[in-house]
Amino acid sequence: MAGLDKLLGGGFPAGSSVLVSGACGTGKSLLCLQYLVSGAQAGESGLYVSFEESREKLVEHGKQFGWDIPALEKKKLLQVYFVETDDMGDIIEGVGKRVRDLGAKRLVLDSLTTMMEHGVVYRSRVSRELGKVLSESAGVRFPPEHMEVTRKDVYYIVREVNRMGATSLLISEVAEKSQYLSRDTVSEFAVDGVILLEINSFGGKPERLLSVKKMRGTPVDLRLAILEFTGKGIVLRT
Amino acid sequence: MAGLDKLLGGGFPAGSSVLVSGACGTGKSLLCLQYLVSGAQAGESGLYVSFEESREKLVEHGKQFGWDIPALEKKKLLQVYFVETDDMGDIIEGVGKRVRDLGAKRLVLDSLTTMMEHGVVYRSRVSRELGKVLSESAGVRFPPEHMEVTRKDVYYIVREVNRMGATSLLISEVAEKSQYLSRDTVSEFAVDGVILLEINSFGGKPERLLSVKKMRGTPVDLRLAILEFTGKGIVLRT
Amino acid sequence: MAGLDKLLGGGFPAGSSVLVSGACGTGKSLLCLQYLVSGAQAGESGLYVSFEESREKLVEHGKQFGWDIPALEKKKLLQVYFVETDDMGDIIEGVGKRVRDLGAKRLVLDSLTTMMEHGVVYRSRVSRELGKVLSESAGVRFPPEHMEVTRKDVYYIVREVNRMGATSLLISEVAEKSQYLSRDTVSEFAVDGVILLEINSFGGKPERLLSVKKMRGTPVDLRLAILEFTGKGIVLRT
Amino acid sequence: MAGLDKLLGGGFPAGSSVLVSGACGTGKSLLCLQYLVSGAQAGESGLYVSFEESREKLVEHGKQFGWDIPALEKKKLLQVYFVETDDMGDIIEGVGKRVRDLGAKRLVLDSLTTMMEHGVVYRSRVSRELGKVLSESAGVRFPPEHMEVTRKDVYYIVREVNRMGATSLLISEVAEKSQYLSRDTVSEFAVDGVILLEINSFGGKPERLLSVKKMRGTPVDLRLAILEFTGKGIVLRT
Amino acid sequence: MAGLDKLLGGGFPAGSSVLVSGACGTGKSLLCLQYLVSGAQAGESGLYVSFEESREKLVEHGKQFGWDIPALEKKKLLQVYFVETDDMGDIIEGVGKRVRDLGAKRLVLDSLTTMMEHGVVYRSRVSRELGKVLSESAGVRFPPEHMEVTRKDVYYIVREVNRMGATSLLISEVAEKSQYLSRDTVSEFAVDGVILLEINSFGGKPERLLSVKKMRGTPVDLRLAILEFTGKGIVLRT
Amino acid sequence: MAGLDKLLGGGFPAGSSVLVSGACGTGKSLLCLQYLVSGAQAGESGLYVSFEESREKLVEHGKQFGWDIPALEKKKLLQVYFVETDDMGDIIEGVGKRVRDLGAKRLVLDSLTTMMEHGVVYRSRVSRELGKVLSESAGVRFPPEHMEVTRKDVYYIVREVNRMGATSLLISEVAEKSQYLSRDTVSEFAVDGVILLEINSFGGKPERLLSVKKMRGTPVDLRLAILEFTGKGIVLRT
Repeated sequence: MAGLDKLLGGGFPAGSSVLVSGACGTGKSLLCLQYLVSGAQAGESGLYVSFEESREKLVEHGKQFGWDIPALEKKKLLQVYFVETDDMGDIIEGVGKRVRDLGAKRLVLDSLTTMMEHGVVYRSRVSRELGKVLSESAGVRFPPEHMEVTRKDVYYIVREVNRMGATSLLISEVAEKSQYLSRDTVSEFAVDGVILLEINSFGGKPERLLSVKKMRGTPVDLRLAILEFTGKGIVLRT
Repeated sequence: MAGLDKLLGGGFPAGSSVLVSGACGTGKSLLCLQYLVSGAQAGESGLYVSFEESREKLVEHGKQFGWDIPALEKKKLLQVYFVETDDMGDIIEGVGKRVRDLGAKRLVLDSLTTMMEHGVVYRSRVSRELGKVLSESAGVRFPPEHMEVTRKDVYYIVREVNRMGATSLLISEVAEKSQYLSRDTVSEFAVDGVILLEINSFGGKPERLLSVKKMRGTPVDLRLAILEFTGKGIVLRT
Repeated sequence: MAGLDKLLGGGFPAGSSVLVSGACGTGKSLLCLQYLVSGAQAGESGLYVSFEESREKLVEHGKQFGWDIPALEKKKLLQVYFVETDDMGDIIEGVGKRVRDLGAKRLVLDSLTTMMEHGVVYRSRVSRELGKVLSESAGVRFPPEHMEVTRKDVYYIVREVNRMGATSLLISEVAEKSQYLSRDTVSEFAVDGVILLEINSFGGKPERLLSVKKMRGTPVDLRLAILEFTGKGIVLRT
Repeated sequence: MAGLDKLLGGGFPAGSSVLVSGACGTGKSLLCLQYLVSGAQAGESGLYVSFEESREKLVEHGKQFGWDIPALEKKKLLQVYFVETDDMGDIIEGVGKRVRDLGAKRLVLDSLTTMMEHGVVYRSRVSRELGKVLSESAGVRFPPEHMEVTRKDVYYIVREVNRMGATSLLISEVAEKSQYLSRDTVSEFAVDGVILLEINSFGGKPERLLSVKKMRGTPVDLRLAILEFTGKGIVLRT
Repeated sequence: MAGLDKLLGGGFPAGSSVLVSGACGTGKSLLCLQYLVSGAQAGESGLYVSFEESREKLVEHGKQFGWDIPALEKKKLLQVYFVETDDMGDIIEGVGKRVRDLGAKRLVLDSLTTMMEHGVVYRSRVSRELGKVLSESAGVRFPPEHMEVTRKDVYYIVREVNRMGATSLLISEVAEKSQYLSRDTVSEFAVDGVILLEINSFGGKPERLLSVKKMRGTPVDLRLAILEFTGKGIVLRT
Repeated sequence: MAGLDKLLGGGFPAGSSVLVSGACGTGKSLLCLQYLVSGAQAGESGLYVSFEESREKLVEHGKQFGWDIPALEKKKLLQVYFVETDDMGDIIEGVGKRVRDLGAKRLVLDSLTTMMEHGVVYRSRVSRELGKVLSESAGVRFPPEHMEVTRKDVYYIVREVNRMGATSLLISEVAEKSQYLSRDTVSEFAVDGVILLEINSFGGKPERLLSVKKMRGTPVDLRLAILEFTGKGIVLRT
């Protein structure tokens, strides 16, 4: 994505972990999928880890932009991994193994928000059972708006992802006009970089905007770029 | 609804789940009922699942716009299902069975907010009894403003609805000027699309507005459309 | 009230439940009392259920506007019922019986906010005693600002009121500039209609304003009406 | 106070309970003390109930405006009662007895906020001891910002005060620009009237403002009056 | 401080308790230290009670403005007391004793916020041990932002300070643009006076501002004064 | 940093503790690293304590600005200490020992926010185990947004850091437009100075801004300075 490389002064630093934050409908998943597809087209393998959308739906969405995901999968240039386990240890292990097997240089977690919740609520199979009993009997539940994630959980996940060696995009949900750049309010401090996607509804026609909020080891251009959805995917204008 | 199809670039993608969010009095139920009626008039069957308003009241409201709901029901083109059970498993099963029996291509849940609360608070008949005893004796209650819904609950319901195969409109309550697009703050990330209904009270005459906030697999026109209540139902102007 | 009928396109639909929301001092009780008095003058019986103000004070307030409440009571055209029980079942039963006995076509609950709190906190005589012990010993109390009312409580009360058959005005407390239209944030979604009373303090002379926020089955005029207190009660200008 | 009578259309209705709300430093205590002094000068006895300031300090403050409180006390036209008990029952009883003995027509509670906290936290001598043990050992305390007062507590106190028969001013603390008119968010709905004291700091010289927010049984003038501190007490300009 | 005396109409009333509130960096400690030094220079003894900064640091800071604190200490005109106990009873006793021994007419508590936390969390040596065990094992802690201070704690401390007889300045932390004048939201109602220090960052050069928010028994000038740090301490311009 | 010395009226007072606060991406780590490097270049040893970023990543980032961190480390002018223990006592001891061994005059804690969480949650090895069991079984977790840090914890850490004798920069996370200058809302009151880093996005090109909010013992220039990232590190313009 030419525009993004310009803002970043030459692309994501290799091996860095980058939060892709935005409210609902800002294009986070599309941006990340395109990152993998363009990598694959350039011969760089990528892994898309999905906790929410099925592989079938992703393939379907890709078609719209002329991306033949199954063909890239056959060439081992792309892989979609739909996570079905609840256990954080298993998730980390499963993602790490696929990164190694594929020799993935690019990794997308869709989304970090959902992934964290898995590992946090059902930390191990034993406590999961205990928690279930308690929440069912006493009605004590955790609200999604105030996810009871500890700093340590966030740093643990980011560290494990960094160890996998790929350049990683971590999708992160955030409310409109939030004071922080992630729902857990900690992720943005743990990662190497943060990209924020927004929709500006003031004035005439609403515009999709992208800004780089942070990128360790790279002089960042703080200006807003305009993001457009075209028939071939996202185009950035700065 | 001509105007909506234009914003969406050709209607809802078949089989998608779409949140219809809005504050009180924005026309959510009417929009959804009209979606089913116009489908039925075009020969496409639809199921209206109501947790709040009785079938009689809905029929009454339809008359006002010249919609003969009982006639459509007789032709198996429309069905109103008023849910009277508390058990989430029973709700999902009951809705799924009616979708299959009717061959429904369109489905409305009025509302997802209420449906979730049923399944979440009284998850099973056993824990319901336990919870009842605890809440009655200790006075520990859950406040509606901070519904203790987990992310997993939201994703579970959306997944089950998606499996039913129909294009689904999920009505969702939201406060005016909310930072999120649903009261639980998670639904909008789980569904395929989000439509927001608002009332703009600034300036002269208050206007009803509709905007598409998200639609996976469709290039979305972000502009606001003006929604009008007429004798024949809702009309959209873009 | 001529102005209100105009906004509503012809008065409240018979048998509907309407929330009358507003901050302190906006005239909710007066509007509702006038609704009953004007009904009584037209030969339509009405019941005023008060949880807060005594019958004596209401009679006194009525005099100010030339309303002879005791005379209307004698003709069975009006009845003031001051609730003195804590038990929700008893309240519902007591109100229902009076509606039937009087043949009331109009019903006012002053206020729904207070009524709900009765039924919710002291749900039954047994749990009341238990709750008392717990709250006194452990100091665990419920704050009025975050009333621990469940959605089910709200829907239960509205359903029971609807069953009584009268057109019902439910008085509801709300903070100035609230994001919701009731303190419990759920009532407005459960009822058929919502009327909001406000005071506009910006600019020159403060004005009392009334707006219809929602009315199922009636095309609503969203404009603000100016409400004036006169020697004969409230007058609305649109 | 000529200006206030004008706003109220002729003074406080006899026997009414009026909340005097305002942030710190807005003149609540002075307004109320002046209400009693001017009553006493007109031959109407008044009782000042203080939970915070000692009788000595009040007498001292009165001097500044030329009010000889001890002289009025001797003539049984004024009495300052400093409450030293924690027990709500004792407080109500003690105030009631003094109102009767003095034949007080005017009553000031300085403040309702403090009075409520006494009765609520230490409801009875037995539970007080229990609560003390729990709070000391477990560190579970109630924060002053979210006073755990129930609606019933508020209504109970207001009802008891009303029964005493005097016209009562109830001082109430409130934050600047609060959405409610009392810290407990309920008092303003329970009383007959509300007066709000504010300081307007926008523009040039800060001004002290008074407005009547509510007065049951009296047509209220909603305009702001300017309140001035003079050598003879408060003067209101409308 | 000439400017302050002007705003106050002649200095602090003798024996009054005054809250000095402000955000971080507004000059609260310096203002209070200067109050004691100027008193000492006029022959009036003062006690500075510090819970945070050591005597050495205070002496160092004083030098910058040409104040020789050790010399004033030798003449018994000033004393710095660094509190090292956790027990509220011991703190009150220790401060009271020093006020009496020194014959202090002026007293500074730096800060009331910190002092309250000592007395509140570790009310007695016994409960301190109990609380420690509980908080360590269960991880239940009290957050500094919502200090669980009761109204009674605040009034108790202010009353004890008043009994000591000196004119007291109580330093109080408060957030920028807070709705209340103290972090505990109660102190400002308990004391005789409140002074607020702010920094106005709007427009050109940021300005330090001082305003008197409340002063019982003194006609207050509500205007803002500009506060300047000079080589000789604070200068106020009105 | 010439510009900063100007704002501070001559650099940080020796031995002071200074909070460096800012949202994500404002340059806190870079500013602090540069502070140590420029000290080292002037012959003053410095210790960088990292709880988040590895030594390797820091060395990498330094290269970008032409800083040869390993060379400075060899000359004992700089040391990067990556903390791997959870125990607060061990952390304090480990940092103190390295400060002494290195004869460090400058100290950076990256970050105080993370450091506090370590010491607070896992205060000792015993309670850590207990807390683990409780949080796993009961699902009671502490949210990062409301870190349950006590005032005493904050003051304890700052006091221990002050005892080490070096001039210390304590990195502190804070939300954009926060009312306080640290996430725990207490740190800014405990330290000697506070520097705030912000990004001003209003108007044309976003600007990085630095302001000194507080500096005990130094007359502070309250104006904003513009901070620029250059090939040689940060440059400040006032």
